[in-house]
Amino acid sequence: MNEHIIIFDTTLRDGEQSPGASLNVYEKLEIARQLAKLKVDVIEAGFPVSSPAQFEAVKRIAEESEAIIAALSRAKEIDIKSAYDALRNGKHTRIHTFSSTSDIHILGKFSDRKYGVSLEEKRKTVLKMSYDAIAYAKTFMDDVEFSAEDAGRTDIGYLAEVIETAIEAGATTVNVPDTTGYTFPVEYGLMISELKKRVSNIHKAVISVHCHNDLGLAVANSLAGINNGARQIECTVNGIGERAGNASLEEIVMALKVRKDICGYQTGINSEEIYNTSKMVSGFTGIVVQPNKAIVGENAFAHESGIHQDGVLKDKQTYEIMTPESVGVYKTKLVLGRHSGRHGLTARLNELGYHPSEEEMQKSYEAFLEIADKKKEVFDDDLRVLMGDEIYKKEQLHELVYLHVNAGTDVIPTATVKIKSGEEIFTESSIGDGPVDASFNAIERALGFKPVVESYNVRSVTSGRQALGEAIIRIRSGENSFTGRGTSTDIIEASAKAFLQAINLYLVFTNTKVEFREDKLIINQV
Amino acid sequence: MNEHIIIFDTTLRDGEQSPGASLNVYEKLEIARQLAKLKVDVIEAGFPVSSPAQFEAVKRIAEESEAIIAALSRAKEIDIKSAYDALRNGKHTRIHTFSSTSDIHILGKFSDRKYGVSLEEKRKTVLKMSYDAIAYAKTFMDDVEFSAEDAGRTDIGYLAEVIETAIEAGATTVNVPDTTGYTFPVEYGLMISELKKRVSNIHKAVISVHCHNDLGLAVANSLAGINNGARQIECTVNGIGERAGNASLEEIVMALKVRKDICGYQTGINSEEIYNTSKMVSGFTGIVVQPNKAIVGENAFAHESGIHQDGVLKDKQTYEIMTPESVGVYKTKLVLGRHSGRHGLTARLNELGYHPSEEEMQKSYEAFLEIADKKKEVFDDDLRVLMGDEIYKKEQLHELVYLHVNAGTDVIPTATVKIKSGEEIFTESSIGDGPVDASFNAIERALGFKPVVESYNVRSVTSGRQALGEAIIRIRSGENSFTGRGTSTDIIEASAKAFLQAINLYLVFTNTKVEFREDKLIINQV
Repeated sequence: MNEHIIIFDTTLRDGEQSPGASLNVYEKLEIARQLAKLKVDVIEAGFPVSSPAQFEAVKRIAEESEAIIAALSRAKEIDIKSAYDALRNGKHTRIHTFSSTSDIHILGKFSDRKYGVSLEEKRKTVLKMSYDAIAYAKTFMDDVEFSAEDAGRTDIGYLAEVIETAIEAGATTVNVPDTTGYTFPVEYGLMISELKKRVSNIHKAVISVHCHNDLGLAVANSLAGINNGARQIECTVNGIGERAGNASLEEIVMALKVRKDICGYQTGINSEEIYNTSKMVSGFTGIVVQPNKAIVGENAFAHESGIHQDGVLKDKQTYEIMTPESVGVYKTKLVLGRHSGRHGLTARLNELGYHPSEEEMQKSYEAFLEIADKKKEVFDDDLRVLMGDEIYKKEQLHELVYLHVNAGTDVIPTATVKIKSGEEIFTESSIGDGPVDASFNAIERALGFKPVVESYNVRSVTSGRQALGEAIIRIRSGENSFTGRGTSTDIIEASAKAFLQAINLYLVFTNTKVEFREDKLIINQV
Repeated sequence: MNEHIIIFDTTLRDGEQSPGASLNVYEKLEIARQLAKLKVDVIEAGFPVSSPAQFEAVKRIAEESEAIIAALSRAKEIDIKSAYDALRNGKHTRIHTFSSTSDIHILGKFSDRKYGVSLEEKRKTVLKMSYDAIAYAKTFMDDVEFSAEDAGRTDIGYLAEVIETAIEAGATTVNVPDTTGYTFPVEYGLMISELKKRVSNIHKAVISVHCHNDLGLAVANSLAGINNGARQIECTVNGIGERAGNASLEEIVMALKVRKDICGYQTGINSEEIYNTSKMVSGFTGIVVQPNKAIVGENAFAHESGIHQDGVLKDKQTYEIMTPESVGVYKTKLVLGRHSGRHGLTARLNELGYHPSEEEMQKSYEAFLEIADKKKEVFDDDLRVLMGDEIYKKEQLHELVYLHVNAGTDVIPTATVKIKSGEEIFTESSIGDGPVDASFNAIERALGFKPVVESYNVRSVTSGRQALGEAIIRIRSGENSFTGRGTSTDIIEASAKAFLQAINLYLVFTNTKVEFREDKLIINQV
């Protein structure tokens, strides 16, 4: 019987800290549902004290999920109380608190003399803050995790002292993060085995690893940690996260699975949900997965050279150490079209892991017919895009009902839009730098509202000359940013839809007042 | 004094085997020049026998490069002779030959009885073929490398025998590829140390590692190989290559550099050229680099969360183990505009590592003014795109001089183009599924030629609402495919340019005859 490794997914917390990845509450809920299908053991859902939106997301995920839901907090009462408040209605919950332990972090973050004058004094302060935070968290629930931030660069003697203290205070999981992705596998493995030796109460807690990928070693380090006694791995879907990201969930899970001959460990992950999860996370965050990404990249199972193709035809195993099907990539491209009908669509969506409600199905079918009218063949990837889109349609305050652009090399790019807002329709036009900019300007005129555009990205999400184009746009308001996505065979239409969707989300989340004045819609920022 | 590790770059060989990455001769030459600036020790330039285009690229790179240029060949006389013919005018050259050594590969690829009936007999055949191939290659040059394909899954006893034989035959480098990305670091390191023990003549050759990334372990495995006695690492820029790709050059180089405290090795790489090289390879191959890619991803040095930003402001080292500048990422965003003039542009291009000739500079300046007219601010990334584009302009058979599109939600997408072919101008229009498809159809009508479109991708290469859009299109003819790139603030114009450029390359490389008939340009496939 192989030993169980706990998979702690932090896509919604550390992953969401990827620059530009801000997710809204709906997106987080959808991802949490998908993570439950993937059967991760723990979902870290956010950092409640950091913003009302973070709090709300953790609260709603905790309320509906069967997995253990973790919430992050610094070693401060206000953070821990907020984490508890967000988690209080959950079934299985965990407060995750942390302190910095490396000299660089301690001297940098606790430079104020109130934390002590010498490094020795500051270290004692950190020790006490950690103990108090854990003890306080224990007053709310039994499942408490403690992380020694930047453990990778922490003196091993002090680290052992901190971990011992944390377990004494009641931590049931102790995490040893390589926060800056600095360690080599041998070194990191040694650190875990030293902790097992030096910390007298280590048997009372689960040791956890949390590795960053700055030198491309996060997965190898995580595995080295497991080989030396750790039993929980913190990781993210597609390896997203701060800077170069975290250890990638799919690589860790498949490494343990493909090489169980030398590992002797198992996870509870339903690996056939990996691909759908990867697609969803990349769609919602707008963080693309490179084609050569292990396990989930579009080329991960493609064989290009003649020699390889020849080998694979003779025996798949020649160049394949796992099947695409084992991670949910189905090569049998079942192609749908207009005549596939509602039943055909439902069947294929179910096979792809989507189970829309009756009402959602109606909308999905209408959207499917719209695509089928433009493209003769509708592929699985088109359907994935469509399902991603449908999630957003819940907040349709303003709808793009007409768009016309005129552009080219010798033309001043001009766009005309009609926007339906409730019963009213607003028509406007504008010029711009290129047809996309013209469309945005026209929409802004129609709404009488000019948001700050933080980023705008386009990409093709399916292949071929009639590819579906996807546009992702992010607008910002204070500390919150709002992402809109749009897809169409016409990239300009996709961009305009995305822009309007971001504006819709902005209006819903900021409760911005909308009024009509002189036949124009006026949006007042509150 | 740290020991020197040989960096063997195979971006142009294994990297080019990435599905969809086919590079043309011009692109390969440019990349080889950039690799020389990066100061890699060995450039594997291609697989000459596999196609005339491969042969030509290896030949031209060997003729102009100061680095060691390697060419791949199976263990066959025809391959080896072809590799030699391609390399013969080079200054420093290497023939790289290989045989499969794992049971899975031997039974799969040598299933025919002519190679022997039992596995034992087939193994003997492989041994003899390898010896003969190396001995034959030695008649042409002294520098010969041998690879034991799928060494990662090869029986260690047999592998030692093969390596011993290869060195006996004269191999000066022996490579131990983990072809399917199957091994764990501890396992792979052990394999190298076992070879050092078991192979009696191992001191006569350099041991090389070549790791694939199917389980996300390629970099860790390469480092484990080095720690156990290997002294050459085969890797690719951005980690591209078959399936999930190869060990990434930039991760390996920076791991060795950042952690020289525990490694004790050094490479000759000029790490400040890493970012420019990464941008060029991603631009030419069309294989995007994900934002969370270590070292070269757009987020690799970005700090998102408040806690991290706060820490970095206090002390950069809090969350940074290397500076962005050390890999050529300059955060000081010097922004150019129309008024920066020719001198400003030249100075900035030099700083970014580009040194265009007088004539190239003139063209670059014109292109710069064109961009500066559309965008108020021209960023470094815009300049990189521009420099990438200029390389293509050498083969302008047909030029897009006018484009007009009419599109939107209730409009049948229509495009009109004017194409200049020598002295003639052809004007045509067409409808299509979306404005891009309409433009392609119009171009096809104007040229009387309908190529097979293999793939079409768009993405934004700079940020903001006036972002430059890039389109990459690949058309196929027989075994060759031709990639065109186009950039513009108008994504449709970018797509049309890319399509025409791919057609131009196709026509040049296939020497297709072009004739005028009834006022139309007729292109005959030969």
